[in-house]
Amino acid sequence: MKILIAGSGAMGARFGYLLKESGNDVLFVDTWQDHIDAINKNGLQRIIDGVDIGPIHIPAVKPEDVVGHYDLVLLFVKSLQLDDMMQRITPSLSEDSRVLCLLNGLGNIEIVEKYVSRDRIYLGMTLWSSGLKGPGVLNAVGSGSIEMQQVNNLESDFDAKLLTTLNDAGLNAAYSKDVIQSIWHKVSLNCVLNTYCTLIDCNIGEYGAYEKHQELTDLILNEIIAVGKKEGIEVIYDIVANNIKGVFSPEKAGGHYPSLYQDIASGRRTEIDALNGAIVKLGEKHGVETPVCKAITLMIHSKENVNDLRNN
Amino acid sequence: MKILIAGSGAMGARFGYLLKESGNDVLFVDTWQDHIDAINKNGLQRIIDGVDIGPIHIPAVKPEDVVGHYDLVLLFVKSLQLDDMMQRITPSLSEDSRVLCLLNGLGNIEIVEKYVSRDRIYLGMTLWSSGLKGPGVLNAVGSGSIEMQQVNNLESDFDAKLLTTLNDAGLNAAYSKDVIQSIWHKVSLNCVLNTYCTLIDCNIGEYGAYEKHQELTDLILNEIIAVGKKEGIEVIYDIVANNIKGVFSPEKAGGHYPSLYQDIASGRRTEIDALNGAIVKLGEKHGVETPVCKAITLMIHSKENVNDLRNN
Repeated sequence: MKILIAGSGAMGARFGYLLKESGNDVLFVDTWQDHIDAINKNGLQRIIDGVDIGPIHIPAVKPEDVVGHYDLVLLFVKSLQLDDMMQRITPSLSEDSRVLCLLNGLGNIEIVEKYVSRDRIYLGMTLWSSGLKGPGVLNAVGSGSIEMQQVNNLESDFDAKLLTTLNDAGLNAAYSKDVIQSIWHKVSLNCVLNTYCTLIDCNIGEYGAYEKHQELTDLILNEIIAVGKKEGIEVIYDIVANNIKGVFSPEKAGGHYPSLYQDIASGRRTEIDALNGAIVKLGEKHGVETPVCKAITLMIHSKENVNDLRNN
Repeated sequence: MKILIAGSGAMGARFGYLLKESGNDVLFVDTWQDHIDAINKNGLQRIIDGVDIGPIHIPAVKPEDVVGHYDLVLLFVKSLQLDDMMQRITPSLSEDSRVLCLLNGLGNIEIVEKYVSRDRIYLGMTLWSSGLKGPGVLNAVGSGSIEMQQVNNLESDFDAKLLTTLNDAGLNAAYSKDVIQSIWHKVSLNCVLNTYCTLIDCNIGEYGAYEKHQELTDLILNEIIAVGKKEGIEVIYDIVANNIKGVFSPEKAGGHYPSLYQDIASGRRTEIDALNGAIVKLGEKHGVETPVCKAITLMIHSKENVNDLRNN
């Protein structure tokens, strides 16, 4: 299958090399010039579970430089860059191209469907993780899985091809009717840990070490559950609360600073509008009050603004 | 008049030396040993409006070491230390001693009245400011005023004595029937600027530079106004909102990091429970929801907890 990886950072690179190794024609698409150059010059360097398994040669290009059409696009950009990326890769899509959207956060499908009809969009949620150790160097541990769904629950011949392609690459994919609920559960965890760790200025273990962390968690979860209900999505409190508590220990993610924390620390824009900001927007649509998500969204944007002020 | 300054930090030192210069018998009481030792050894060093005006000799002691009784106690401790300080200085109070409570925050009178009957308590709100440049060195600029009230609105011969004593020292005092409202207005400003600057990690000017700062401000003010109403206190939105906007410019407090920010940065406990935390408590008493104040109070306490974890 001809597969275009739109957003070839940590996750895209990991998925891309596994799909290449299992026999697909993979193209990395990214906007980070140093990363593109490093991959094209030396191949993608790979440190997997701490072991250097050597480079793999996969071409990397900017969105404008894609030649030909692709059967499948895996979307792995940050939600902030999604609209721009979709616009730039649309010429590389044929009428048969399918898109698998694996981004974190809410509101992504609404952007993708501006460029691709819903019958060609798959929505996925993955528990794989990954990291980069500088341009062109993948540094990933452990394994994961993918839960996916055709967004309109349509069936087609492509379903089996997609499943086989992903599983031949060892990506542990399965269809589900509850991907949207799984995405909301993942979003809920990120709405709590990404934001509080950033505002409190702590890692995940330190967040969990505060005796009243559950009260903080609940202030956000209660708003998400109320908004989800109006959207027809059941966000199950116990599942999310346990997922959050489950990552506090040092053996899990306790020592980890969430991605949004790292974005602020590096002066980058954050994905807050696809997390708590999306909850606020949906709350407004349904007349559900979300004051805590609103305060948190505004504080994170204010932090971005402070970064801008200090860097200019 | 025999005046005991309970809490002889920045504000207490400034008031104390002015009262000493105008002929009163002043005693500094504090718990910071280096500060006490420096004052007793070299006198209180004074840098006023940038000019070193030399030392003034005023005795400084720990609460246990007060000898005799005092006519007037000025309370300038942090609200966190108030209960402890009141307990320790109570033996120095006679039945005629009056207490003027000038602390920031809510809930202070409720602590003082555990030790002194309400007919002997005055409540004050001051616009004086002050700073310390290390132990024993006062560094203060500008001038201010005091608005004060007998907490039960009782009249007595002491009223005139107190007013004369303060004004002879140049402290610009006046009686008012609205001290409690003024205190709520000051608390409201601190509930907004102290907390957001700490969580966003910025100074006051940077807070004001974010285009949606008013939305952040309103999320807190709306909760305070609702709680104040149930307490019978009219918090006037326009006054507080204008006070807040009035300090954004660099000529005002724009470059300043609020005291709560500095407490966190120095690993100290904060006064959050006398600010947003007090609003939460009063909200619970009246059945008024205060989710934003609650989230902010918990995040600040979590920051204190992170400081403790890292320092131990």
